[in-house]
Formats: sequence, structure tokens, C-alpha cells
Amino acid sequence: MSPDHNSTRHDRDGVARAALALLDEVGLADLSMRRIASRLDVQPSALYWHFTSKQELLAELADRITSAIPRDDADVLTTARSIRDALFAYRDGAELVLSTYALQLGSAHAQSALEESLRHRGDADPRERAIALLHFILGHATLVQQRMHADSHGALPAGEVVDVTAGLDRIFDLGVAALAGGAVDDEVRGHRLR
Amino acid sequence: MSPDHNSTRHDRDGVARAALALLDEVGLADLSMRRIASRLDVQPSALYWHFTSKQELLAELADRITSAIPRDDADVLTTARSIRDALFAYRDGAELVLSTYALQLGSAHAQSALEESLRHRGDADPRERAIALLHFILGHATLVQQRMHADSHGALPAGEVVDVTAGLDRIFDLGVAALAGGAVDDEVRGHRLR
Repeated sequence: MSPDHNSTRHDRDGVARAALALLDEVGLADLSMRRIASRLDVQPSALYWHFTSKQELLAELADRITSAIPRDDADVLTTARSIRDALFAYRDGAELVLSTYALQLGSAHAQSALEESLRHRGDADPRERAIALLHFILGHATLVQQRMHADSHGALPAGEVVDVTAGLDRIFDLGVAALAGGAVDDEVRGHRLR
Repeated sequence: MSPDHNSTRHDRDGVARAALALLDEVGLADLSMRRIASRLDVQPSALYWHFTSKQELLAELADRITSAIPRDDADVLTTARSIRDALFAYRDGAELVLSTYALQLGSAHAQSALEESLRHRGDADPRERAIALLHFILGHATLVQQRMHADSHGALPAGEVVDVTAGLDRIFDLGVAALAGGAVDDEVRGHRLR
């Protein structure tokens, strides 16, 4: 609709969208400001008009990745799986969100969603448990995502295992159930009965 | 003792030692084969005589980092803390070991130590629980290590918090206790009574 397509790409939203698309193509290690600028056909310095630093841009990407997590009264296991799946939706999504949370940037949307789910189940003081759950989810998702990516690029050692992530969903559920405490036991049984 | 110091530096052990020292100085993102070779005053191609790939070298570093974990009949919390502290002993140690485990390289020393501790406490089939514990420890340690590093370089957002890792030891113990199951409850109580 705009007469000048270039200028509409270069607002803050356009830069973030281009960076997210590029992340999916090249991965976090190669997501440089230079490369994002090149994709938008501008000088790298133009990006700093919208984001004061690369870290601020990465925090915006982390917010967008985790915005897919529903904020309702879902049970803890459903919320944990939503977070994992949101991280999996972009290449290196888990590693990016882990780094952003480490630097205390971004909106901590995932932690809030876990706290809400725990509180909904009767946990009056869910903060520490939510953080422990988040550390588990981020560690698990980063490891699984790196393994899946290496496998799809033939970078894993040759072996007899066909499905390199076999059993990891079970380990995820087991970990979430243990960390959520008694509150989640009935939920896990319910999920298993599906 | 050797008349030719250069040649003794350039065996497999010498390359790994130089790489580990360089990791501590520059971090994982900047640990290139070129830089390691430069440190040893050789061409990068010379390194491939000892390691067929950078991944193989990183796996050797992960084995050295995790070799500090004691393999005795320690309780689960003590073993988990030993793993965390071994990861903290080198810059980006947690991220390096996480990546190596993701690629199923290296000796999986940390997982074995956790399985032994769980078995020692009467868990007859500790494999999945050990993996869940390891994912939590790696996620937690990677996040805490990145936060500590950013803090020491003034890269965290300004705020009122003085100790950026305050409370994280509690969350670590809480997470380990939950993931280890009932077996560890008495241990945690014991540690708290110290």
C-alpha cells in the first residue's frame, strides 16, 4: 500500500522481521548487524537508529519468539510444551532466548507464563519453581535443537541410532513433572492417558 | 627437559592445553582454529594432524572440563554441584559442554556421574532421570555463567540489583532436589543443616 516500499521496511518492526527471517536462515552465530543491514539494503549504522545495540535487537527477537506462548490458565505441562515448541519454531531459538534471559533483557514472557500456570494450580509462591522450570526447558531445548540441526546437516557421529531425539520428549515430560512438584502429577497422568 | 620445546607443545595434549587456556581468555565464540594455531605459532592446517575437526577438539576440551567431576559414591546434590562448578571453572565451559553433549561427542562423563549417584541411592533405572538432571544443570549453568560474564563486563541493564546471581544457588538446589526425586530429600535437608 505504501508508495515507498523501502522506507516501510526500515521501521523498527521491519528490522526485527528481517532479523528473525535471517536468523532462521543462517543461525545465531552468523546473525550479524552487517548481515541484517545487507538484507535490508542499508548501512549497518542505519540499524542503530531503531536499536541501540545488537543485544537490544536480540531481546526484541526473543520477545517475538516467546510471544507465541499462550497466557491462559493452561496446566504446567501444556505451558512448558508451548514454551519448548515456541523455541523450536526458529533456528537457534532456544539459544537466543537463553542468552537474552541471561542478560536480563526482554520481557521474561516465558517465566511469567510458568508462574501463572503454577499459581493457577495452587502454588502460592511459584517464582523460584518457575525459574528452575525455565532453566530446565532452556537447557533441554537448546541441546535438542542443536542435536536436530546437526543431524539434519550430517554432523553427528555415525551410529546405530536412527532417531537422534528418541526418548527426549519423555525426558522433557519427566523433568517438567518433577520440577512442577505434586501439582502436576495428575496432569501428567491425564496426558499419558490420551 | 626437551631440547626442542616447540615440538613438545605440538602433540595432541599440547594443542588441547593451548586451546583450553585460550578459551578462558577469549571465550567460545572467538575460539577459532586459526587463533589456536597462532597461539602455538603454527599454521592452522597443523592442528588437523591431531584433531580431524574443530568439533573433535571441542569434545576433547569438554572431556577435560568434566574430568574434574569426582566419580565416587557422592550424593546426587554433591555430584550436581561438582558438575556445575567444573563448568564454571572455564569461561563458557557450560556452553561448550552443552554443545558437545548435543552433538553426542565426548565421553558423557557428567551423565555417568549422575547415574552412579542416583543408583547409589537406590534408583535401579536412573538413566532418564540423569539426563533430565543434566539438561537442567547445563541450562542453569549456561545462563548463570553468561550473566556473571556480562555483569563483570558492565553489559547488564542498570538496576537496583547488586548481586546478579542472588538466589540462583537456591534455585539450583531446588531444581536438583525435585529432579532427583524422593531419593535426595534427606540429602538436601542435611545440606541445609550445615
